[in-house]
Amino acid sequence: MTQLAQPEITELSPRESAQDARRTQILDAARTCFARSGFRGASMQEICLEAKMSPGGLYRYFPSKEAIIEAIAQEERCGAAELIETMRGTGPLLDRMMSCAMGYFAYMRDPGACELMAEISAESLRNSEIGKRFAQIDDSVRDIMREVFLEAIETGEMPPNADLDATISMLQAAVDGIALRQINDPDLSLARVEPLLRRLVAGVLGMKA
Amino acid sequence: MTQLAQPEITELSPRESAQDARRTQILDAARTCFARSGFRGASMQEICLEAKMSPGGLYRYFPSKEAIIEAIAQEERCGAAELIETMRGTGPLLDRMMSCAMGYFAYMRDPGACELMAEISAESLRNSEIGKRFAQIDDSVRDIMREVFLEAIETGEMPPNADLDATISMLQAAVDGIALRQINDPDLSLARVEPLLRRLVAGVLGMKA
Repeated sequence: MTQLAQPEITELSPRESAQDARRTQILDAARTCFARSGFRGASMQEICLEAKMSPGGLYRYFPSKEAIIEAIAQEERCGAAELIETMRGTGPLLDRMMSCAMGYFAYMRDPGACELMAEISAESLRNSEIGKRFAQIDDSVRDIMREVFLEAIETGEMPPNADLDATISMLQAAVDGIALRQINDPDLSLARVEPLLRRLVAGVLGMKA
Repeated sequence: MTQLAQPEITELSPRESAQDARRTQILDAARTCFARSGFRGASMQEICLEAKMSPGGLYRYFPSKEAIIEAIAQEERCGAAELIETMRGTGPLLDRMMSCAMGYFAYMRDPGACELMAEISAESLRNSEIGKRFAQIDDSVRDIMREVFLEAIETGEMPPNADLDATISMLQAAVDGIALRQINDPDLSLARVEPLLRRLVAGVLGMKA
């Protein structure tokens, strides 16, 4: 990927809100392209076409495909942080876990969200540079889960001998698997998933559903 | 992809076992290439190089990349059928489910198996021709699970009001998610997965672990 000169921010359009809108327009178009053609398959040209912008216009915001991917990873980090916050707070642990997971499933029903996630997980398996950009998200989610579970052990909601790291990994893996599959599977509507997931999570956590 | 003339089987090498070995050599090489570069990214040339065969030699066995993918799908169908058979038979349902799932996880630890599975799942999401070749496997696994669960309801091992289709989808999704993740996650060794998975499956099935 050729590295282009960084645009002078001061030369851009006068209103910041217009700039933000342009930026969002590009990132949304890029998500569509990555979902359709993969991170490797999608070209800057395809992204320009989808965003209905000239290459010159697009390069003022993002000098490379890598820069776009990094910006998407940043958006995903923020989205995940917001979602995982629902796991904290008051009320029974199982209810908080369920809010978080169901919110994630709902988000994954956005057009392209699931395909993008499949791409991210394929890149993570390959341990590629792209994969690494997204791995951080996983780590920060784990940190919050560990904190929440340690509290639950203290309050007696979870058994004291729980294998926390394996528990966290299992839940992440199972929830990701369900999120990916729900898109094309009519048997995994949110309403039908809910009671089964509750028992699944309770089982993994060693609680009663 | 250009369609080459089908080779005359009778003109091939005299010993069937040598032919089989050649065929296996090509399919193993193709799996490695697909795992590394994806179904779309891998070329016949890359597969030839990996198999250490000339294009002429390879085309005697497979006229196109599609034919190779179809042969791999066929191998996967056989492997899945064999594995899912462990779900039938005698003994408690939970033990049979666990044998099947743990066998699947062990198989997925083969080099490249996981990356290939991630590729297959990305293609299935895109509902592409490649994805459809593998979708059948999923259907046949579902049929056997449904049969096994109906028996379990009859014997009282599972509650009579179970939402069977959603239960099957949830288990497939969760197990696939765990299979994919276990490769790079040291917290998901088979020994640590086992007790958590048992509680997960029991929870989804509405049984006691």
